[in-house]
Amino acid sequence: MSGNSFGCLFQFTTFGESHGPAIGCVVDGTPPNINLNEEDIQVWLNKRKPGQSRFTTQRNEADKVKILSGVFKGKTTGTPIGLLIENTDQRSKDYNDIKDLYRPGHADYTYQQKYGNRDYRGSGRASARETANRVAAGAIARKILGTTIEVRGALVQIGPHKINRDNWDWAEVNNNDFWCPDPEAVREWEVYLDAVRKSGSSVGAIVEIVCQGVPVGLGNPVFDKLDADIAKALMSINAAKGIEIGAGFSTAELRGEENADEMRMQNGNPTFTSNNAGGILGGISTGQDIVARFAVKPTSSILKPRKTVTTSGENTEVSTKGRHDPCVGIRGVPVGEAMVACVLADHMLRHKAQCG
Amino acid sequence: MSGNSFGCLFQFTTFGESHGPAIGCVVDGTPPNINLNEEDIQVWLNKRKPGQSRFTTQRNEADKVKILSGVFKGKTTGTPIGLLIENTDQRSKDYNDIKDLYRPGHADYTYQQKYGNRDYRGSGRASARETANRVAAGAIARKILGTTIEVRGALVQIGPHKINRDNWDWAEVNNNDFWCPDPEAVREWEVYLDAVRKSGSSVGAIVEIVCQGVPVGLGNPVFDKLDADIAKALMSINAAKGIEIGAGFSTAELRGEENADEMRMQNGNPTFTSNNAGGILGGISTGQDIVARFAVKPTSSILKPRKTVTTSGENTEVSTKGRHDPCVGIRGVPVGEAMVACVLADHMLRHKAQCG
Amino acid sequence: MSGNSFGCLFQFTTFGESHGPAIGCVVDGTPPNINLNEEDIQVWLNKRKPGQSRFTTQRNEADKVKILSGVFKGKTTGTPIGLLIENTDQRSKDYNDIKDLYRPGHADYTYQQKYGNRDYRGSGRASARETANRVAAGAIARKILGTTIEVRGALVQIGPHKINRDNWDWAEVNNNDFWCPDPEAVREWEVYLDAVRKSGSSVGAIVEIVCQGVPVGLGNPVFDKLDADIAKALMSINAAKGIEIGAGFSTAELRGEENADEMRMQNGNPTFTSNNAGGILGGISTGQDIVARFAVKPTSSILKPRKTVTTSGENTEVSTKGRHDPCVGIRGVPVGEAMVACVLADHMLRHKAQCG
Amino acid sequence: MSGNSFGCLFQFTTFGESHGPAIGCVVDGTPPNINLNEEDIQVWLNKRKPGQSRFTTQRNEADKVKILSGVFKGKTTGTPIGLLIENTDQRSKDYNDIKDLYRPGHADYTYQQKYGNRDYRGSGRASARETANRVAAGAIARKILGTTIEVRGALVQIGPHKINRDNWDWAEVNNNDFWCPDPEAVREWEVYLDAVRKSGSSVGAIVEIVCQGVPVGLGNPVFDKLDADIAKALMSINAAKGIEIGAGFSTAELRGEENADEMRMQNGNPTFTSNNAGGILGGISTGQDIVARFAVKPTSSILKPRKTVTTSGENTEVSTKGRHDPCVGIRGVPVGEAMVACVLADHMLRHKAQCG
Repeated sequence: MSGNSFGCLFQFTTFGESHGPAIGCVVDGTPPNINLNEEDIQVWLNKRKPGQSRFTTQRNEADKVKILSGVFKGKTTGTPIGLLIENTDQRSKDYNDIKDLYRPGHADYTYQQKYGNRDYRGSGRASARETANRVAAGAIARKILGTTIEVRGALVQIGPHKINRDNWDWAEVNNNDFWCPDPEAVREWEVYLDAVRKSGSSVGAIVEIVCQGVPVGLGNPVFDKLDADIAKALMSINAAKGIEIGAGFSTAELRGEENADEMRMQNGNPTFTSNNAGGILGGISTGQDIVARFAVKPTSSILKPRKTVTTSGENTEVSTKGRHDPCVGIRGVPVGEAMVACVLADHMLRHKAQCG
Repeated sequence: MSGNSFGCLFQFTTFGESHGPAIGCVVDGTPPNINLNEEDIQVWLNKRKPGQSRFTTQRNEADKVKILSGVFKGKTTGTPIGLLIENTDQRSKDYNDIKDLYRPGHADYTYQQKYGNRDYRGSGRASARETANRVAAGAIARKILGTTIEVRGALVQIGPHKINRDNWDWAEVNNNDFWCPDPEAVREWEVYLDAVRKSGSSVGAIVEIVCQGVPVGLGNPVFDKLDADIAKALMSINAAKGIEIGAGFSTAELRGEENADEMRMQNGNPTFTSNNAGGILGGISTGQDIVARFAVKPTSSILKPRKTVTTSGENTEVSTKGRHDPCVGIRGVPVGEAMVACVLADHMLRHKAQCG
Repeated sequence: MSGNSFGCLFQFTTFGESHGPAIGCVVDGTPPNINLNEEDIQVWLNKRKPGQSRFTTQRNEADKVKILSGVFKGKTTGTPIGLLIENTDQRSKDYNDIKDLYRPGHADYTYQQKYGNRDYRGSGRASARETANRVAAGAIARKILGTTIEVRGALVQIGPHKINRDNWDWAEVNNNDFWCPDPEAVREWEVYLDAVRKSGSSVGAIVEIVCQGVPVGLGNPVFDKLDADIAKALMSINAAKGIEIGAGFSTAELRGEENADEMRMQNGNPTFTSNNAGGILGGISTGQDIVARFAVKPTSSILKPRKTVTTSGENTEVSTKGRHDPCVGIRGVPVGEAMVACVLADHMLRHKAQCG
Repeated sequence: MSGNSFGCLFQFTTFGESHGPAIGCVVDGTPPNINLNEEDIQVWLNKRKPGQSRFTTQRNEADKVKILSGVFKGKTTGTPIGLLIENTDQRSKDYNDIKDLYRPGHADYTYQQKYGNRDYRGSGRASARETANRVAAGAIARKILGTTIEVRGALVQIGPHKINRDNWDWAEVNNNDFWCPDPEAVREWEVYLDAVRKSGSSVGAIVEIVCQGVPVGLGNPVFDKLDADIAKALMSINAAKGIEIGAGFSTAELRGEENADEMRMQNGNPTFTSNNAGGILGGISTGQDIVARFAVKPTSSILKPRKTVTTSGENTEVSTKGRHDPCVGIRGVPVGEAMVACVLADHMLRHKAQCG
């Protein structure tokens, strides 16, 4: 209950700092006899891995995952799956100049005040590096979800630049450095983000996660609503500041007759004629696409000098020189996918337990 | 783990449907020797109670809370506090005409599909009535938070009509039927919502919760971030579709240097010169005001006829005749306050356990 | 996490003191569409109810249970089942003479030291009355287990007097005041316990719980072993001081070849030729009878004067005059059954989730 | 919730099989700023390590622990402590002859039936090797308990041979191969266990854990009683079949006036004149020594041939040739100590949260 575990039946517990010997996680509750090998996990880690374009940090981590337990003869045994990812590109000396001050927008100050200490190397536990564990757990969650459920993410806005939803093409998402589904936006974003990067600044973004094929009935009615658990999952990602399900904040401006998705029979089945609900009603999946978005704030580590204070209480300025992301939202896409996949896998098992 | 409990150390478990004999909850983990009586809880329930103006449902529930356990001689004993609220104004016959169909925007369809049954009277467990339990638990949470922490809520938007933040006056919040902090907006909202109500429609809203006096250090760094738990808490409220912390979705458009709150020494203490973070960095409270917002969709029960299907698979239309809220977001204010208070009380105890 | 909830997926949370207005519990996680009414629960409560013979306390509680939620049209809905049992026979004045001292063997001293307060009326939360909630939850657990699994208990020892296991007859258990399966022991026990009672003393006992029809495969391999959860369940019962599974403590004296149950094929199925394991190997049920025993210490409230101290720190003596059980182990039988039934129901749902 | 985590606030999650690349655990909830290095953990692992005398298995594991996270500059940071212990002495071929049959008294059959698979190498997850993780977590728990609380264990019975409690000398425990506190019993045990070992058999034992210096007030009153959590902790240890607290099963034979520990004022403090309660009343520590015992069944892997069945359903015999313990109860001592230390640390944090 110290907050490093996520999920109820499909549960994973993470450990590790950016600059320790390794990070890793224990994935518990996986059903037995699912085919699983390291490559199944590695493919997703490779998507999250930094240093793949000029738009993400140039830190060069192999992010090579090892399965330490829970798999025998290529199949899950039902016992906990221990995963280990060694840290290979640590340059702790990069952090000497920030160990005595609090970087604005970072967790430096709050960690120090909470714990009376702080592993300042690469932000320690607050590093985006921790999210590699989430992606690894998400890879296993996808195995539980099976092939009929697809969890995909895309970047739909960088700074003020939104995609044109009419251009949405999932096939495009893997063709550019942004997970952008709109090929026209890509060109605009490249120019824009290059300028941001060269100016030593950073910018925020919005990520959208879409889950197709989710059966009706997942989720619980009161506190552990499917959308409540997705909200927690996404808000727990570093730099997330806002969450929406379906029509989200725009529902505030809608009338009841505009918002509530009407139903019609189609081929003998009840269907919805719209999806403002984002695939969830009363906390339970409707069978429509689940649609969630989260806003990612701009990276706080920037070259531009910022006013701050030292740990000993003096005013100063800081400009971060380490290797950082001009738009950390880009790497938020595979992490958001993974977290939502974990929520779905957990609720799938919970639903099977009670109503299966 | 079936989703009817909330919180870790300060934990409450709710039960009850809209049209059963009673609803109630068990509040566990309260520290001993806190002064507590029924009136301490009743004052908050009275704020949430429907039927107090023409802008909320005319259902007339006394919402009278009874303390069944956990309090002895006016003080908490440290054992679970059982709370009971009897249902007194049940008109189950109101629901006969909806028992064989799925109301658009409601949980009727998902409950039926998940459980293979449905208590259709007043939406059963999905009724907003369940939130009375949350307000009751929140009243106890406030006792734990003490007098130096203040958790307050306000309605900042109804339909397209936002408040003018320059007019914000907390004292105004209790002077109108909307928990509106902007007296000028009130007049506009009255006219607007009267029109909505008379047209048999409904409209969405945005609620803002502000917590003053929260000490630095509450929250956990990875999954149980303070903002992640607030996101879950608020998204678990009926009709919530979006959550923001601090600058929220607008951070997507900000540059790093615009977003990260700078720090300066003031009277010997580190302070922030802005609060885009909404009082939380790295999942841990900064000591600034915690600011959270949630979007509430328009009530789905409206007089206007809507297309839907019957439980036996025929197309039909429905127009809800029961007593309902033209803007359920109004009653979301005390519920949102309560949920955030519960999150803070829980994290206060958790922080004391590990770092106190 | 304050210790008033039990179970993971089938979870119940209890509240209430002996002398408050009511006790009750919330039973969460029950599958939907199970037939359930108050009488289904009441029959088990009646078995536990005090005052049914001269061998149990003469306190006269109706122990009448009310279902407040979670059941609609005679079937469980899958939402939490709220249960309420009013306290009707409270004689708080009986407790005035013990409010300023600590009764030896009772929780008076530890409650006072832990919480800085104490509801001294009928031991407050530490009263055996709390176990009525467990029996009620157990009745619902039995519904989940279905008719092929039978959970039964018996008293196998009172004071130094053990049953003769050769005489074991389950049909006898309901024919005497002791849940004794050995009709010959009954006569001996009656004489013995009458003498104990008349002397103003009390005596301990051993309860045995046997579960027939449990399928192979329930339980988890490491911490949440089926036997570990049964051990916790039984040790959480008031006055329990020891737990055994199968051959229990006698295994300390056995050789490997005497203890390990051998296997043979029988009618095409693997079977065991003995059951020292008590139906559990490696924390997982084997398909054999699950056999658990627990020792119940003698009631601490006795007429014989005992040395103690007052809350203000003076030596004194106490002799308890209220209505009490000469052998509280008798009433431990239905409580033990209920707790084991709850563990089995929980693990049945957990097994279905992961391996179903 | 798949059963590989233990504890509430001080929680550890283990992974790893006997013959995978490594075992390990994540220890979460440790307070920050506690001095901790690998040697602090290693000393306890060395006590549990096999191969230290002819009375334990000759498997030769270094059991060398690595701290992967959660410690910075020699102090805990408050974030999860990742621990890794590599498996170095794996002889998987030893297990080829048991992969197609079920060893009596082992978890082979139940694992296969539960999961539909089985890692038969060294019993996989059911191996006693898993307990190294518990000892490692226990070492950290001891750091939380501090120097005023001492958790010690001793072997008090091997086969039919009990110690003479009058000879109890804690200093002797580290002077022999049995953790035996009675030097006279040691000589007897050596002769006895040598004979057992040479005959290719094994024998059970009883372990006693004593905790000195535990303050009054730890534990919760109903389900999470301190003794209930200790019972679960000890029953979760491989081969445990029975648990006692204080006078344990012997209380069944006691009268109320014999069992209830009387109280007297001593130097201004309430004290007890005996300790049948084993230091726990009503689930809460009394401040006396906490005394718990557990029975460990004889090792099921023995040279003597035993009847069993094959996985394909044929009758056969098995005699285990691998390296095994003639009395696995010996190695149960450091494991039992560790588990009780973990329970105490957890309840210490829980108590601080609610009542601190």
